[in-house]
Amino acid sequence: MIAVVKAKKGVEIKEVPYPQMNPDEVIIQVKYAGICGSDINRYLDNIFLPPGITLGHEFSGVIVEKGDNVRNLEVGDRVTASVAKTCGLCFYCQTGLSPLCDETKRLGLDYNGAFASYVAVPAKLVHILPEGMSFQVGASVEPVAVVCRAIRQVGINGGDTVLVYGPGAIGQYAMQVALASGAGKAIVVGTRDSRLELAKKLGAAHTINVKKENLREKVAEYTDGLMADVVVEASGAPDIVDDVFATVRKGGGVVFAGLPHERSNFDLQAMVRREARIFTSILNDWCDFNQALKLLDYGKVSTEGIITHEFPLEKFEDAVKAVLERKAVKALLKVS
Amino acid sequence: MIAVVKAKKGVEIKEVPYPQMNPDEVIIQVKYAGICGSDINRYLDNIFLPPGITLGHEFSGVIVEKGDNVRNLEVGDRVTASVAKTCGLCFYCQTGLSPLCDETKRLGLDYNGAFASYVAVPAKLVHILPEGMSFQVGASVEPVAVVCRAIRQVGINGGDTVLVYGPGAIGQYAMQVALASGAGKAIVVGTRDSRLELAKKLGAAHTINVKKENLREKVAEYTDGLMADVVVEASGAPDIVDDVFATVRKGGGVVFAGLPHERSNFDLQAMVRREARIFTSILNDWCDFNQALKLLDYGKVSTEGIITHEFPLEKFEDAVKAVLERKAVKALLKVS
Amino acid sequence: MIAVVKAKKGVEIKEVPYPQMNPDEVIIQVKYAGICGSDINRYLDNIFLPPGITLGHEFSGVIVEKGDNVRNLEVGDRVTASVAKTCGLCFYCQTGLSPLCDETKRLGLDYNGAFASYVAVPAKLVHILPEGMSFQVGASVEPVAVVCRAIRQVGINGGDTVLVYGPGAIGQYAMQVALASGAGKAIVVGTRDSRLELAKKLGAAHTINVKKENLREKVAEYTDGLMADVVVEASGAPDIVDDVFATVRKGGGVVFAGLPHERSNFDLQAMVRREARIFTSILNDWCDFNQALKLLDYGKVSTEGIITHEFPLEKFEDAVKAVLERKAVKALLKVS
Amino acid sequence: MIAVVKAKKGVEIKEVPYPQMNPDEVIIQVKYAGICGSDINRYLDNIFLPPGITLGHEFSGVIVEKGDNVRNLEVGDRVTASVAKTCGLCFYCQTGLSPLCDETKRLGLDYNGAFASYVAVPAKLVHILPEGMSFQVGASVEPVAVVCRAIRQVGINGGDTVLVYGPGAIGQYAMQVALASGAGKAIVVGTRDSRLELAKKLGAAHTINVKKENLREKVAEYTDGLMADVVVEASGAPDIVDDVFATVRKGGGVVFAGLPHERSNFDLQAMVRREARIFTSILNDWCDFNQALKLLDYGKVSTEGIITHEFPLEKFEDAVKAVLERKAVKALLKVS
Repeated sequence: MIAVVKAKKGVEIKEVPYPQMNPDEVIIQVKYAGICGSDINRYLDNIFLPPGITLGHEFSGVIVEKGDNVRNLEVGDRVTASVAKTCGLCFYCQTGLSPLCDETKRLGLDYNGAFASYVAVPAKLVHILPEGMSFQVGASVEPVAVVCRAIRQVGINGGDTVLVYGPGAIGQYAMQVALASGAGKAIVVGTRDSRLELAKKLGAAHTINVKKENLREKVAEYTDGLMADVVVEASGAPDIVDDVFATVRKGGGVVFAGLPHERSNFDLQAMVRREARIFTSILNDWCDFNQALKLLDYGKVSTEGIITHEFPLEKFEDAVKAVLERKAVKALLKVS
Repeated sequence: MIAVVKAKKGVEIKEVPYPQMNPDEVIIQVKYAGICGSDINRYLDNIFLPPGITLGHEFSGVIVEKGDNVRNLEVGDRVTASVAKTCGLCFYCQTGLSPLCDETKRLGLDYNGAFASYVAVPAKLVHILPEGMSFQVGASVEPVAVVCRAIRQVGINGGDTVLVYGPGAIGQYAMQVALASGAGKAIVVGTRDSRLELAKKLGAAHTINVKKENLREKVAEYTDGLMADVVVEASGAPDIVDDVFATVRKGGGVVFAGLPHERSNFDLQAMVRREARIFTSILNDWCDFNQALKLLDYGKVSTEGIITHEFPLEKFEDAVKAVLERKAVKALLKVS
Repeated sequence: MIAVVKAKKGVEIKEVPYPQMNPDEVIIQVKYAGICGSDINRYLDNIFLPPGITLGHEFSGVIVEKGDNVRNLEVGDRVTASVAKTCGLCFYCQTGLSPLCDETKRLGLDYNGAFASYVAVPAKLVHILPEGMSFQVGASVEPVAVVCRAIRQVGINGGDTVLVYGPGAIGQYAMQVALASGAGKAIVVGTRDSRLELAKKLGAAHTINVKKENLREKVAEYTDGLMADVVVEASGAPDIVDDVFATVRKGGGVVFAGLPHERSNFDLQAMVRREARIFTSILNDWCDFNQALKLLDYGKVSTEGIITHEFPLEKFEDAVKAVLERKAVKALLKVS
Repeated sequence: MIAVVKAKKGVEIKEVPYPQMNPDEVIIQVKYAGICGSDINRYLDNIFLPPGITLGHEFSGVIVEKGDNVRNLEVGDRVTASVAKTCGLCFYCQTGLSPLCDETKRLGLDYNGAFASYVAVPAKLVHILPEGMSFQVGASVEPVAVVCRAIRQVGINGGDTVLVYGPGAIGQYAMQVALASGAGKAIVVGTRDSRLELAKKLGAAHTINVKKENLREKVAEYTDGLMADVVVEASGAPDIVDDVFATVRKGGGVVFAGLPHERSNFDLQAMVRREARIFTSILNDWCDFNQALKLLDYGKVSTEGIITHEFPLEKFEDAVKAVLERKAVKALLKVS
């Protein structure tokens, strides 16, 4: 079988052995797999990944084999799976914080991932796709789950105005999950009109192009001067933190839905004067996947306009190029 | 000016003096007023109300006079107002629970209400209608606010299935507020097909007519056997409490959005075995009104099909008749 | 080895085979085991239990064997364990509500329990006793964990007044856990002065003997007329529900920390007018055990005066008698 | 009457007119007033304050006159009062966030404060001292209320380990309020042994002197490697933010209980990887005062060892000196 495997520099697309599974696992024939920014950073060697690991953690497929202990799944089930193999015994695993387990092994990072014809994963991480959900959408559950976790951390009250920084895939999903979680109005901030138009199609009441418009004035205008009840940072832009805290209303909530730049220099005192609350979010768990599946199934979250490109697995590097050139919002690999 | 005033038996529609106001109040010319079930119970002498009080607490209008201390409102403002005058100093008022103030005086009950050409209310209770909101919708903010409070008490997680008992005005609003607060799917339970069809038009995924269908089986079917994450009781039906607790999922939440029958006999132990959480809700406050106004303004909650009848103030008794005969879901009085 | 085993009527104390374990389990030599009200109800045949099951679920002991997969425990560890074997895969298990798992198997009820020389339990359920904690206290972690779950459900704000119905073992622990969770003042209600004196020794500010004092007047007196912020029902008394709701302050919380009588007839409308919140609680999980261990270890919860009697395992029926005659608050079996 | 009044540079202690009150206010004869760090910063001209304003906002006293509208207080009442006059009508005031009101006027900053023989404050802000509470303790309610608000923002679960940076008055109160709110164990970090010994006397399980010990290693040691569930930053030290985030456990909460240095440069990404939650807190409200009064009254929070010095009002500058030289933890002015 074929796989996209980390090489000393970049990746190799090459034959690899069919995966082995233990009695608590299943083997899934991968149908579609999405390319995440973190895959690209590993491809570009911006982030270290040991050579030999198969990349990819956003995917859908069909179960072709199951271990002897697996009772909740059948061969033939159309599925997706969450990312983190965890120990199940530590404080974090036992208190509902499994993504924080010290022994977390992440699919496509710490063990072989889904940019491959077949992948082995623990049955405990697998979710059956609702009837009628396409494999393309199934490969999008993981990024939606990332966002579900972030939105749950910050919390939304019915009718809240939510401000989202960054109209990439994560930002577009964050806006939709926020609206599906009770936000009354969404404002999306970006630098590319095409992405902002997409946000409007997906439900944004307002968009702000910071290359053309005064961010803080516009947020004030769209919120009757209160500023946003909730701010979701999904741009990863350096030096955005002061803007983030200047555009949340007093007593409001901020969540970082993605990894920000390492060090930030910002006005902590201003944040205290606003009595802001700040939440962070990492990975996702079964609950997040469960919620993501429901929101996609009910049509509360759409992938339309977000999944813009499909490439065969072999064309991984073309897919990466489409993302890096900002042609693709989200590129999928059609694996089998 | 004319008003619907409690008499020894039923009401009189008669001339009353123009209201007096203190320096912290405004006088509002009433445009529309909604008839609440509690108004009808007072009209029918099911609930005692001292003779002489003008009924009515769901309304909209225009400010025609303002007291000397009123800084946040102007003559000519299109407005509605919340119900409860409270002391402002007690434990409840100072801890965000003003509807529970021991000295609460309720509009149309403890002081003269809005079934009248003019009504005096404290400026602190007044909300300006958003641009473009009709006076009919403005007269519906109060019942929506009642429901906002109830839904906030129980809490909704994004994607939850909500089950609503009772497709009257409160139930229809409760379903919509639940969806606007993050519910992924709503199921409405009732006994009249026309009301259940209205629920579908307003967003219900499923309806159950308990005269024709097996309630508990249907709820199980629509929830993959889990039962509902959240149950809203808005029917006021006697002996419904066992059904309510049998149709909430284990660990789920129940809220009573309206006054239940006085005494209930039910299986408390079953409730404990399900680890259910039960919430109750009474009246509403500024926050609830603020949220209701946003949800109506953003189109997240609609009055279409709920406001079915309009009568002039003088025809109050015809309006009551339309409600009692179940012709009207919600009847409004056009006052001026 | 010897065990207390359910017979057709009552129990037999007899020789049973040494337990078998699977690779994820450990075998524990039982040191002490506590007698729970539910054990007594099964002994008295008030609640059905299939003959052949060994009773007992509150215990401490030492690991004497471990399965091949067990990494987090060692032979010789001094331990206790939680009660519920759960499937690990269902909605409830995956969302932090494992006590609600449909497939829950309870120690001493659905599988052989701890009134025996040895017991086999999954490693996942085992907790190591903190250094210096006696086996007697270790056998009390389970009932404290039950109470931790109940108190967590209702929530305590720093300084709250908590009212506890029932000064038995659960009530005494509930009072202490409430104080350890932020309650500023505890009031305990009962019918026996000796138990109420014990409550005072363990931290109650006030006690009320309902045989001698007017309950509602006394609660009002001790709370400046507000009534209790939080009420914990741990008496299981029939017809207590109206008192419970009459003694919680408006907007306050009530939790049932134990199984109430099956059907209750009470004034639901009064509860709504108070805007009370009601919580329920069943079994316990790893988090509850973890918290219970900390509170006992830090000395925030004491067993002094609660553990009143010790009997050898063979004298199980004497132990039951001591409890039924209300001589013992909590009786322990010394097993080995 | 005499008062400590801001001058062009520093302060003047001089005769000022007796205060005027409106019908909603009372006049209080000040008994004791505490010196806050912010008073000192204004005295030192580190923070601008317009000349002519009387300083002081932590105080106790006796009501000597009341306005015509004041119903909840009597002349002779022993009282303290919260700091912030707010508009009562804005979004913040009406949603329980009054300290965030745009029109907030702060005692001793925006209107004449309590370093004076008499002070006028709105009746709405006044709290009666519990029987038996001394005026010295009454003058300490305000800083305790500041801390209550901070601790409530972050939230404590029963048994949590709380780590407090800074053993000054705010830190000492924060540790005690955290313990009274359910913390099982407190660790206090500082640079002066005398202050750390005081923390131990007031309830700290461990202290860390960062001049002598390795902070991160010690926190790990005292928490079995997990780090602290909750971190309270009350030191105001520059460059402490990285330590703060390195010593909170994954998924834990951080609260800034005081104004941090304006700009901070820290590892935001590390914070996200820990999934930390960050809360901030500003001023206090009626709820915070109510809680502070209860905790002081019940003996859950003690001022012993914190109130170290008393000076007559005229010796304000000596009092400031005692604080600046770190002789005093908290210095009180005895006013009358």
